[in-house]
Amino acid sequence: MALIVQKYGGTSVGSTERIEHVADKVMDSRAKGNDVVVVVSAMSGETNRLLALAEDISDHPTPRELDVLLSTGEQVTIALLSMALEKRGCAARSYTGSQVHIRTDSTHNKARIREIEDKRIHADLAAGRVVVVAGFQGVDDNGNITTLGRGGSDTTAVALAAALKADECQIYTDVDGVYTTDPRLVPEARRLDRITYEEMQEMASLGSKVLQIRSVSFASRYNVPLRVLSSFEEGEGTLITCEDKEMEQALISGIASNRDEAKLTILGVPDTPGVAYQLLGPIADANIEVDMIIQNVAPDGATTDFTFTVHRNDYSRALEILSRTADELGAREVSGDDKIVKLSLVGVGMRSHAGIASTMFAALAKEGVNIRMISTSEIKISVVVDEKYLELGVRILHEAFDLAQPEKI
Amino acid sequence: MALIVQKYGGTSVGSTERIEHVADKVMDSRAKGNDVVVVVSAMSGETNRLLALAEDISDHPTPRELDVLLSTGEQVTIALLSMALEKRGCAARSYTGSQVHIRTDSTHNKARIREIEDKRIHADLAAGRVVVVAGFQGVDDNGNITTLGRGGSDTTAVALAAALKADECQIYTDVDGVYTTDPRLVPEARRLDRITYEEMQEMASLGSKVLQIRSVSFASRYNVPLRVLSSFEEGEGTLITCEDKEMEQALISGIASNRDEAKLTILGVPDTPGVAYQLLGPIADANIEVDMIIQNVAPDGATTDFTFTVHRNDYSRALEILSRTADELGAREVSGDDKIVKLSLVGVGMRSHAGIASTMFAALAKEGVNIRMISTSEIKISVVVDEKYLELGVRILHEAFDLAQPEKI
Repeated sequence: MALIVQKYGGTSVGSTERIEHVADKVMDSRAKGNDVVVVVSAMSGETNRLLALAEDISDHPTPRELDVLLSTGEQVTIALLSMALEKRGCAARSYTGSQVHIRTDSTHNKARIREIEDKRIHADLAAGRVVVVAGFQGVDDNGNITTLGRGGSDTTAVALAAALKADECQIYTDVDGVYTTDPRLVPEARRLDRITYEEMQEMASLGSKVLQIRSVSFASRYNVPLRVLSSFEEGEGTLITCEDKEMEQALISGIASNRDEAKLTILGVPDTPGVAYQLLGPIADANIEVDMIIQNVAPDGATTDFTFTVHRNDYSRALEILSRTADELGAREVSGDDKIVKLSLVGVGMRSHAGIASTMFAALAKEGVNIRMISTSEIKISVVVDEKYLELGVRILHEAFDLAQPEKI
Repeated sequence: MALIVQKYGGTSVGSTERIEHVADKVMDSRAKGNDVVVVVSAMSGETNRLLALAEDISDHPTPRELDVLLSTGEQVTIALLSMALEKRGCAARSYTGSQVHIRTDSTHNKARIREIEDKRIHADLAAGRVVVVAGFQGVDDNGNITTLGRGGSDTTAVALAAALKADECQIYTDVDGVYTTDPRLVPEARRLDRITYEEMQEMASLGSKVLQIRSVSFASRYNVPLRVLSSFEEGEGTLITCEDKEMEQALISGIASNRDEAKLTILGVPDTPGVAYQLLGPIADANIEVDMIIQNVAPDGATTDFTFTVHRNDYSRALEILSRTADELGAREVSGDDKIVKLSLVGVGMRSHAGIASTMFAALAKEGVNIRMISTSEIKISVVVDEKYLELGVRILHEAFDLAQPEKI
């Protein structure tokens, strides 16, 4: 008998019919002999409805009160799902984050989970009940309601699975797993049976919106097997787990693309110690996140050139700040481009295989796709290219690495 | 400086504009130097919306889960009102029933308050905050969310006022006080400045829908001065308090009417000990509440006649049960009438004045209104008359006791 934590997002519980369907899926898992803990989000649309009420009242709603307000969304869902289970003759009990002691820090609207009391849940499971827990919410040491921020229900599910030492944490969503790349771009894209935490984190951070990156790193830290699967279709989904030494890993797991990029370049900056901080400090102070950073010594040997990328929404603000810094430092020129995208190869297999990068560059060059920036990590190679090459680039790489073929195990 | 508990019902917080208006009223009371604790209901329509979701799922929603569901209604309101206060520069803090430890028994959907922790609220008040508490809800000893049943927000407010030893509990509603009778029936009806708990309880139980009867008896028990006033109009409302010996009481405070009555009669029941129980036991077992009961010995001396009233909705069920009992007991005849109404005079003054009943009967007789049943208590005389005489009867009595004139103090 296994202990399974299942998480259903807003779309999966978007109506009472959908909630009935979720109850059926929970019953299926019980029928297989599993103990089940279910984590649910607010019904889709509900969080936005509540936010609109708050915005009606105030442009800057008190963070503490916003959490009191938003946490009602999941509370409605846990009650309805428990009713649906009870109707099916399945004993169930709902808990808010506060009731089940999901302890967080006091950072309202984006709190972090510190610990979860598992006794009450284990007692319910031992009594044969399904436990239904409100995602996204917790309680601080003073009894104040907190929320974990958008997507926090995934984190709740993983944290619960870790605390309960569950055998698997299943994230039900509107896609049926993790793909080698976006199937809307490449129809041949293939669902992966399995992917490592590290690869999933790179995929998530590179724009694959299947899972919250925070929940993946949480799962990795506590070694919780995570499965992404569809609440609308049958299937095994994709299992996200730690690297299995026994098994030959695929070279490349997938190709991620990120459309919302912009790059900024500053040329001819006097090359003195601390110059990187002088350039990027003001950008960070403006709460703009910087992604890739490249520095080259300029041909003259006395100055240096910098290029970095930011989210496209932050482009004009970043350009303004950088121009001011350029004046102060006596740099030669500032330029930028917000019509770029990032393509990334991700795969733990590339660690032990040489030549991945050159294969990638050759494939792109052959089709005339010009590479503007390159950045690498142990399990990832990212290139920045012109926006117009996004779809073409992804397709070229998907084919170059033969990703439409099932993994050779 | 006084400590005031204010309660605003669903209509008073029915939209974000109305909530802003409530915030203004709270600010007014603060400006007068009061400490203020506010109890709010769910926004009007919200409880019904949530009930509809539950009914979509199940014909018999689990009582525990229904409370989890319904309690979100007030939680939304406390958050929004606190935001509105904070926007006005007024420090505020919201609490659910569970957070402020409104301890109840475990009777889901109609729980009773056992105790309230006052420390946290007193600490907030001392720190200059307005405290906003969710009405209608509490928590049992195991941390389960409970609700007090419809109208329970009044009870929450009075219980809080009692626990905090507040100077006054103000119930804001959509009427501006308690009237000598229903102003829709008698345009001359006059708002009472003052009424005793006992009179208010009789008025409430007789169909004046201003206040929940439970909250009045609660206020009486803990001697909490209760004021009913309008959240839409300015005014002093009606103060409900204990009887003031110093002050000459008005003879009659008001006239209540109750449209939803039906009466049942069983004739010729063998007059043996325990016959009343044999007749009314099966009615009570069917959860039908019996109001007036009259028993007379029949002319033959060996049998007895019974008449009693029930809510009109229960009439046909009660008639069916009574007919069955009649067969068993060998009674002569069962009859009934669901076209009757009840008119009642209420006033603590009648205790010390003779002749009230005869004045009442004479006034009705003069206009040809036939009395079908009579029942009296220390501060009330009720008569049952044909439905068609409801409006006429109320007007006759209002005039007979000169209630349109201000009280002679």
